[in-house]
Amino acid sequence: MDQNSASRIRVAILGATGYTARELLNLLLRHPRVEVTALTTRQDTEPHLADVHPLLRGRLDLTLENLSPQQVAQRADCVFSCLPHGASAAIIEPLLANHCRVIDFSADYRLDDPQVYTHWYQVAHPAPERLAETVYGLPELYREAIRAACLVANPGCYPTAAILALAPLLKEKMILPRGIVIDSKSGVSGAGRNPKPNLHFPECNENFTAYAVGQHRHTPEIDQVLGDWAKPPVSVIFTPHLVPMNRGILSTAYADPAGDRTADAMLESLAQTYADEPFVRVVKHLPGTKDVVGTNCCDISLRIVQGKVVVISVIDNLLKGASGAAVQNFNLMYGFDETTAL
Amino acid sequence: MDQNSASRIRVAILGATGYTARELLNLLLRHPRVEVTALTTRQDTEPHLADVHPLLRGRLDLTLENLSPQQVAQRADCVFSCLPHGASAAIIEPLLANHCRVIDFSADYRLDDPQVYTHWYQVAHPAPERLAETVYGLPELYREAIRAACLVANPGCYPTAAILALAPLLKEKMILPRGIVIDSKSGVSGAGRNPKPNLHFPECNENFTAYAVGQHRHTPEIDQVLGDWAKPPVSVIFTPHLVPMNRGILSTAYADPAGDRTADAMLESLAQTYADEPFVRVVKHLPGTKDVVGTNCCDISLRIVQGKVVVISVIDNLLKGASGAAVQNFNLMYGFDETTAL
Amino acid sequence: MDQNSASRIRVAILGATGYTARELLNLLLRHPRVEVTALTTRQDTEPHLADVHPLLRGRLDLTLENLSPQQVAQRADCVFSCLPHGASAAIIEPLLANHCRVIDFSADYRLDDPQVYTHWYQVAHPAPERLAETVYGLPELYREAIRAACLVANPGCYPTAAILALAPLLKEKMILPRGIVIDSKSGVSGAGRNPKPNLHFPECNENFTAYAVGQHRHTPEIDQVLGDWAKPPVSVIFTPHLVPMNRGILSTAYADPAGDRTADAMLESLAQTYADEPFVRVVKHLPGTKDVVGTNCCDISLRIVQGKVVVISVIDNLLKGASGAAVQNFNLMYGFDETTAL
Amino acid sequence: MDQNSASRIRVAILGATGYTARELLNLLLRHPRVEVTALTTRQDTEPHLADVHPLLRGRLDLTLENLSPQQVAQRADCVFSCLPHGASAAIIEPLLANHCRVIDFSADYRLDDPQVYTHWYQVAHPAPERLAETVYGLPELYREAIRAACLVANPGCYPTAAILALAPLLKEKMILPRGIVIDSKSGVSGAGRNPKPNLHFPECNENFTAYAVGQHRHTPEIDQVLGDWAKPPVSVIFTPHLVPMNRGILSTAYADPAGDRTADAMLESLAQTYADEPFVRVVKHLPGTKDVVGTNCCDISLRIVQGKVVVISVIDNLLKGASGAAVQNFNLMYGFDETTAL
Repeated sequence: MDQNSASRIRVAILGATGYTARELLNLLLRHPRVEVTALTTRQDTEPHLADVHPLLRGRLDLTLENLSPQQVAQRADCVFSCLPHGASAAIIEPLLANHCRVIDFSADYRLDDPQVYTHWYQVAHPAPERLAETVYGLPELYREAIRAACLVANPGCYPTAAILALAPLLKEKMILPRGIVIDSKSGVSGAGRNPKPNLHFPECNENFTAYAVGQHRHTPEIDQVLGDWAKPPVSVIFTPHLVPMNRGILSTAYADPAGDRTADAMLESLAQTYADEPFVRVVKHLPGTKDVVGTNCCDISLRIVQGKVVVISVIDNLLKGASGAAVQNFNLMYGFDETTAL
Repeated sequence: MDQNSASRIRVAILGATGYTARELLNLLLRHPRVEVTALTTRQDTEPHLADVHPLLRGRLDLTLENLSPQQVAQRADCVFSCLPHGASAAIIEPLLANHCRVIDFSADYRLDDPQVYTHWYQVAHPAPERLAETVYGLPELYREAIRAACLVANPGCYPTAAILALAPLLKEKMILPRGIVIDSKSGVSGAGRNPKPNLHFPECNENFTAYAVGQHRHTPEIDQVLGDWAKPPVSVIFTPHLVPMNRGILSTAYADPAGDRTADAMLESLAQTYADEPFVRVVKHLPGTKDVVGTNCCDISLRIVQGKVVVISVIDNLLKGASGAAVQNFNLMYGFDETTAL
Repeated sequence: MDQNSASRIRVAILGATGYTARELLNLLLRHPRVEVTALTTRQDTEPHLADVHPLLRGRLDLTLENLSPQQVAQRADCVFSCLPHGASAAIIEPLLANHCRVIDFSADYRLDDPQVYTHWYQVAHPAPERLAETVYGLPELYREAIRAACLVANPGCYPTAAILALAPLLKEKMILPRGIVIDSKSGVSGAGRNPKPNLHFPECNENFTAYAVGQHRHTPEIDQVLGDWAKPPVSVIFTPHLVPMNRGILSTAYADPAGDRTADAMLESLAQTYADEPFVRVVKHLPGTKDVVGTNCCDISLRIVQGKVVVISVIDNLLKGASGAAVQNFNLMYGFDETTAL
Repeated sequence: MDQNSASRIRVAILGATGYTARELLNLLLRHPRVEVTALTTRQDTEPHLADVHPLLRGRLDLTLENLSPQQVAQRADCVFSCLPHGASAAIIEPLLANHCRVIDFSADYRLDDPQVYTHWYQVAHPAPERLAETVYGLPELYREAIRAACLVANPGCYPTAAILALAPLLKEKMILPRGIVIDSKSGVSGAGRNPKPNLHFPECNENFTAYAVGQHRHTPEIDQVLGDWAKPPVSVIFTPHLVPMNRGILSTAYADPAGDRTADAMLESLAQTYADEPFVRVVKHLPGTKDVVGTNCCDISLRIVQGKVVVISVIDNLLKGASGAAVQNFNLMYGFDETTAL
């Protein structure tokens, strides 16, 4: 690399112990215009990155530190927050005040309506006035707004897979906004790195379950963005399931057609919508999660069965569903080629 | 065991190389009233059972033989056919003529209408007149007919999970028969023991896919049995998926409610329907496949989400979805306690 | 079942929340001469068995209770303790005083020498005088002593696989007692049901590691029993590994030959040793864990490579390596057929 | 990328349907100095890359072609052969004659002695005179020779893990060359992409087996390279095992110490040997395969147990064990930074 470090964006990652931070680092460390200058943890011990993420040993010589927002702002131009909701907004507000640009992995700035936020997350939002102003970081839908944003709300993993599949069909009035079923299946890394009884290997392995049926917090996010594109409000039936594998989401969405278009016509319309997108591939075959794991791609296909439109989409939940999308957003915000490091 | 062998039913298993035959043997070999007298294969080599199924080494000293129907009929009172469709009917006809009672794992006698059979299986049926007469071997729905039957069509694995969840709700007019979505997920043993590219370990492992969307041959079987209980015909939207695990099916069914009953009321109705069933457990929590793998049980739960009824059911595809159901049918046919060996 | 309950042995299981207790119950509930009368937990909440082990829902209507040794002794003739070491001995002493017979899954009574126990477990033993007197519950080696025992120390899972493979070869002086390497690989259920960071699904899945190299507490147990059969003391090099699967242990043992016997001769000797054993199968092919998972069997094979004897053995760690062995011991202690319920 | 394509090395991949070719492409397509110009298959159908490797859809617009060596030589400066042994040498000879430089993934040029080759591979070598001249492509051992080579024999996956762990200890006379046991465990992708009964998902999943004990073709390769470093000849006892996971090899090697050095001293010596190596990390903890999967790294640790030296090493079998090593060799051959694209 012939770029000198002076031309690099200084980057900090907050909450660097989890899987999304590991994947993010794995991408950023091969980004020619990034210098990772700070990693934070809220724990008192300040471990070396190599001990937290053995996969990254030798790639970056930094320890995770328990830093104040001011310390972070001194070291970084751009901050990726991998903190959980609530904790994330609390630190993002002072970072913005200190002129950092921020990409937030949590749900704190994804919803427009503070009341919806409070209903689903059971806490009051620390900066409700910022909610409706924050850009939802799905480049395929909101690219121009992302370029100019100081704060980007990185989308949830389930919403990314479902929205990319459904939003164009809703916008083109090919499917009806009522009664949409989204039956989603996710690998276990989506549940984070903290051990829990139901994620203990012998409980999770060789098992398949639904969970949080009708109660998953990604529901209002899907409703909001789909409603934004469908115009009439949308209230999806969202059913997440846990698959005994590490990575990948497959979303099977069911909707009623709004006209009499054939499956081929709908598929062609999707293909045209995404023709110039570097990371969305509309395919005729039924895609599997292995087609996208390790990439920032979303593969989408469509069938009509007994008069019902069935749209299937796959992503890597840790990349297009989290860290890959974040780097894509970062590239847009700083004017780099959108595919850099991806 | 103090029963002498004279009082035992002599049993043959056709097509004994596959997973369903292995599971069937594992059950029958601890059945106090069964003597396994013949195992068949259509291959010329006649291997010992221990080499075909190492798990059963030492349990039964038999080789698999390439036997004619007449030879089978001489050795066995009751025949379980684990042959594929087409091959199964071809041998079952002479077996019935030779006074064997038969439990057929294939789809050959599940459908009532020869034209529907021909449409989905692309062959003419060798004994079309027997189709409408054959008992569908789901004890919870057709117990009395099974007791008297000479030929029982053992149900498919996907249909078992879906029908047990939906038939009572349709019969009680709690859900509408139109637009039912059945989003099913199965472990890989359901695809049989023959190696195929998409079932090669590194292709299948850490992957999740839909397959045969709108084209799976279990569809007409589900439509037929649900229609029989709903009375108006049913045409489900059926979407099977492959889960990277060995055993288990989870079915997530979506239907529109027919009245204004609550989820609790529907769940209570299901519980009452199955109150005396030894192998159906209606539960309040969301069941996972691990709750039933290794058993002949079907666990069912129900939610209402955004006005849509969501019914979740789980079975072991090789037991309640195949060999366990077959032994349950066998027990009914011969007047044994229905739970013997299960 | 035509036996009346008066003729049944009343059985209690201590520490009934874990995997070994679940497997034990699964076996005992089909044992014609057992009545399970008590299940204990050391937690204050007293959950129903169906909520602790959904797999067993409907099989037994008992809650787990926090019972004193005296309460257990009033309800049970025979007690299986699935408690961890230390906790187990503390309750077993009063149980024995109250005339219960006990099968202990912990390591508390496996070692003969209190000092060795203290060295490896870092606590003093509450009843050191009982150590050298307690029977090691490996029926293939100590069958007669087990029949008469009031207290049986159920063997560890790794020792069972390794000892069954090596003890006869040592006794027959076919291999040298020095420098034996035991490279063992276990499914994750062997580590118990408590969630831990390294057993979190995304950490454990698609990963293979060695652990506790040279420090695993099963080491002195292997040394002791092999030494008992070899006569000169044995100090094995024991290296356990974690396999991303639920069940099964494969042990690959390496030893120097003591003479010039061929591999076939050694295999034949093993076959003769175990000719009458219902649960040991000496085979010519290389066995895999799937050949024994779900059974109480140990499959053993042997090769000589570059002058080194390589002995490979497989068991189900939860059955022959724990609960199956316990039921086998129980059958011996009460004079039932050794294979009952297995 | 601002390099124009004139400055790029034109690269062909032979036998591009398998896993090593997919991984190789994934690396080469982000190499700034590579242009992939040809992909070959020996099948008559000439599928598009996107259909063979859906993961790479959109990355490269090429079909796989059934090309002659001359056609390949016209299009490419450097050829990576992912063909099986025998087939590989047959095409490499004309490629070399046409002035291509070649990196061969097969075993055809790894062994120095044609008789050893014939013994293990059961065929005569087409160019026996080239055997002893060909460079073994393990950069950590033979870096300078690789730089100048026209033909590099890319090492086997098992040998890479074992040799990196043991060669320095042998060279430094810290371990004895006799009686070395190498107990290796590999993910299933190492067995290739062709479906086989034992690699069928339900056979392989939840199973652990040894295979080819004492007969694996990587044995002479390990013996040869370790002997080259130890000077006295080496004959290892090599036992491969199959782990139910996609990627990764862990090698557990056992050797007798040659002196009285402590484990710490040996570990320190290893650390010094590899201090400047970009892809070997000597660590104190016990490494797992997940620490290296997706990277070109080999992590090594060491213990002494009961007087036996135990060396544990892990690699990604498809990267450091195949395609990553190939790119590392390519970088050396063309004078690029050794870590480019890795």
